[in-house]
Amino acid sequence: MLQCNKKAENGAMSWLDEVKWDAQGLVPVIAQEAATGDVLMFAWMNREALAKTAELGRAVYFSRSRGRLWFKGEESGHVQTVHEIRLDCDNDVVLLKVTQLGHEPGIACHTGRHSCFFSVLKDGAWQAVDPVLKDPESIYK
Amino acid sequence: MLQCNKKAENGAMSWLDEVKWDAQGLVPVIAQEAATGDVLMFAWMNREALAKTAELGRAVYFSRSRGRLWFKGEESGHVQTVHEIRLDCDNDVVLLKVTQLGHEPGIACHTGRHSCFFSVLKDGAWQAVDPVLKDPESIYK
Repeated sequence: MLQCNKKAENGAMSWLDEVKWDAQGLVPVIAQEAATGDVLMFAWMNREALAKTAELGRAVYFSRSRGRLWFKGEESGHVQTVHEIRLDCDNDVVLLKVTQLGHEPGIACHTGRHSCFFSVLKDGAWQAVDPVLKDPESIYK
Repeated sequence: MLQCNKKAENGAMSWLDEVKWDAQGLVPVIAQEAATGDVLMFAWMNREALAKTAELGRAVYFSRSRGRLWFKGEESGHVQTVHEIRLDCDNDVVLLKVTQLGHEPGIACHTGRHSCFFSVLKDGAWQAVDPVLKDPESIYK
């Protein structure tokens, strides 16, 4: 007998089924630093990435450009420990409360900055206002 | 002579041109409470919504379900004053630092809660952990 692989083995709905995946099977994810409240980055997860994130307690995203799971920190060492996984009122956006490991203060951005949101709109232009904490060339060897 | 309406009048690139709009002409937006750091909600903007947000200093989103601009608070009175507009390293996600008006503490969510991210994954299930601050029926009359 065929079994729907989206159901948990006991026939109950899985928490993963309650997420409203988009047409590509993805959900947008916001990573927020637990200790500071800083919004570090925005990425996407598929079902497998979210399941892995919950299982491992570390952020696993889905890289749309590479078309595969992206274990955050797999190259940079800048792993994110996940303390809490939240879902929004429409069940279609995930919020992670994380600790950004690998550097102090944490570096979430591939540019070597704390947060990916380092550009501010000022006088009609985007201006990079946050410092590079580490040379990206020394992060991605 | 035809003029490209995506260029500013002086021929310079507009800050709006630097945003990487998706195939639907939208960009994802995170609204974060300036005073607390709380992530309040996630929504989308088109070019006009982002321009209006910057012009008015209040959050204007694009409602995908209604297919039109959504002046946050237009029905609920829960307007968001915008203090800062940030862009991420890929130029494809916007972060707003806002003050949530209309109630104390602020109500960003249509369920009458402070934040849309009121559900936490706990013991394999999504659990609503944040209180309803105001009955939605009295918000949307």
